[in-house]
Amino acid sequence: MRIAQIGPLYERIPPKLYGGTERTVSYITEELVRRGHDVTLFAAGDAQTKAKLHPACPQALRLVGKQELGAYLQLPMLSDVYESADDFDVIHSHIDYWSFAFAPFVKTPTVSTMHGRLDIEDLKPIYSRYKSVPLVSISDNQRLPLPFMNWVATVFHGLPPDLLTYSKGPGKYLAFLGRISPEKRPDLAIDVATKAGIPIKLAAKVDVVDRAYFDQVIKPRLALPGVEYIGEINESQKNEFLGNALALMFTIDWPEPFGLAMIEALACGTPVVARPCGSVPEVLRNGVSGLIASEFDDLVKAVKNIESVSRESCRKEFDTRFTADVMATQYEYIYHDLITARRNGSNPHARFEDGRSAAR
Amino acid sequence: MRIAQIGPLYERIPPKLYGGTERTVSYITEELVRRGHDVTLFAAGDAQTKAKLHPACPQALRLVGKQELGAYLQLPMLSDVYESADDFDVIHSHIDYWSFAFAPFVKTPTVSTMHGRLDIEDLKPIYSRYKSVPLVSISDNQRLPLPFMNWVATVFHGLPPDLLTYSKGPGKYLAFLGRISPEKRPDLAIDVATKAGIPIKLAAKVDVVDRAYFDQVIKPRLALPGVEYIGEINESQKNEFLGNALALMFTIDWPEPFGLAMIEALACGTPVVARPCGSVPEVLRNGVSGLIASEFDDLVKAVKNIESVSRESCRKEFDTRFTADVMATQYEYIYHDLITARRNGSNPHARFEDGRSAAR
Repeated sequence: MRIAQIGPLYERIPPKLYGGTERTVSYITEELVRRGHDVTLFAAGDAQTKAKLHPACPQALRLVGKQELGAYLQLPMLSDVYESADDFDVIHSHIDYWSFAFAPFVKTPTVSTMHGRLDIEDLKPIYSRYKSVPLVSISDNQRLPLPFMNWVATVFHGLPPDLLTYSKGPGKYLAFLGRISPEKRPDLAIDVATKAGIPIKLAAKVDVVDRAYFDQVIKPRLALPGVEYIGEINESQKNEFLGNALALMFTIDWPEPFGLAMIEALACGTPVVARPCGSVPEVLRNGVSGLIASEFDDLVKAVKNIESVSRESCRKEFDTRFTADVMATQYEYIYHDLITARRNGSNPHARFEDGRSAAR
Repeated sequence: MRIAQIGPLYERIPPKLYGGTERTVSYITEELVRRGHDVTLFAAGDAQTKAKLHPACPQALRLVGKQELGAYLQLPMLSDVYESADDFDVIHSHIDYWSFAFAPFVKTPTVSTMHGRLDIEDLKPIYSRYKSVPLVSISDNQRLPLPFMNWVATVFHGLPPDLLTYSKGPGKYLAFLGRISPEKRPDLAIDVATKAGIPIKLAAKVDVVDRAYFDQVIKPRLALPGVEYIGEINESQKNEFLGNALALMFTIDWPEPFGLAMIEALACGTPVVARPCGSVPEVLRNGVSGLIASEFDDLVKAVKNIESVSRESCRKEFDTRFTADVMATQYEYIYHDLITARRNGSNPHARFEDGRSAAR
């Protein structure tokens, strides 16, 4: 299959540090290449890929301080994609709604995976203009703010199976991974750990917008005994950080669209203690791959009981549901359905209009 | 002719207060309707027009505090325009480079008038992707940063002839109109007026980004004798403000793409004292419609000699070169050329590729 992948321009693909969307785009792309597809990746020129790379700008924008250009620089990239649409059997976009306006002008079908939260009122007029474009969600929960869209499937993120190695434990500390921000509730993770009397390590970046939160809410807690702040870590440090942990603390308080950190932990055999927000009840199975609880006391109890969840079953859950292989298989089905529907001249997704997909 | 006009979404068309692009879009649109064309205006829903209005959002974005959505909300608008392109003989875009990516997918030709300054390095990769799209500049000087583009004409802005009435004078004060910002040099206007011993009135808005400049540089000068700050004025107050002036002070220090205030002054019979930046040497004729000078002492001299420029000749200059009628006639030529070229299957602008236009 001749496949165009359209990536965001903000982080390198794959990202050097933080960047969930760009990592997933990388995993999909490389797995499709591995399977023998003819894949072209439209992305910043520093992307590392075995696909054909079509550069939209020399370097990913965040680390060169030009992220405000991301939206505008997508226009020439979209021109490049859609003016050469006949060279592809399917176009797979990862840049929110940006492909929607171009897709109708070409014969090649486009599917767009939504990577972000969709509960932003101001963007509703944009989405509602394009109700028939085929969309993939990364959790069913992610769809809730936009039920009227043409959701053709939920495809969970997946990681290369050998990216992170299984660690049989026992874990030594609780781990917090990702971003220090109010909606991720690192404060709650620390308070739960402290109450349970278990050490906690935080490996997370602090964005400029979250600096005041870090200074006022998190910094004082870092002085507590058993609390250690490591800063932003890279992919190679992640395996050790997660593998040696007793549990990943995913004490979020926002509609997390997917939550890559959860499946990274599972790949290491590390269970997750999580609040049931966003994708959590879909990604985790209570007692099998983690413990889900909402309130402080229940979270403390979960942390104390976490060794009731087997590390082997966590890794097994990862191997069965969250590898790049599983993810790519689902996308292959979706591509195939789209191409067939377009060839038959029918609405490419009439069969999916109940909002669920054959690909699950 | 069936004409689509695409307006920016930031200010109402026409704007309630400041907004040069939106005012020009309004003048072009209404004049084309007056001439019997079938015009559809794509713009915010509060636009006031005799054309068919196709609303892209309920209200213009600046006065409801949502200007950051302008870029995104243009996508559904562009879908509406280009999915119905067959309904138009020509599409005329006023939203910078945003139409460029859509134009190749339809048979109807698009021409884009550039309204802003083009010397922004970060935007060059976008423009250089689209070297063949037909562009109109609003002064020849505006083109300088992007000489490689397909400039098909320079069309000066024009005003409805009865918008502002001629005032035979004599003027009583120097006038500064528009925006208090460093590149407009209101400080220089005040200093020149003070040195010449002539009163000056400033009718101008202060944007948030210019607040510090206003407080530090302009405010102390407002205490000087003969200096009066009026604030932002509306269209109906402008006639009196400009008509009673001895001269408009256009002491700019930036590459002004056009400078509507200059031709507003001329319509009132008021000459302009200007620095030779950007469009100024094209718009003004020295001694006929104003006096051009660079340095402080020469500007003081110009102000003192301004009555050597006849108010009648200023208005005559306006009537000959800067009415909506003159402007619409030029655009009709451009539309006609584009349609003919497209019909003949040739590059719509091969004949213009020396960078100048037949329409001037």
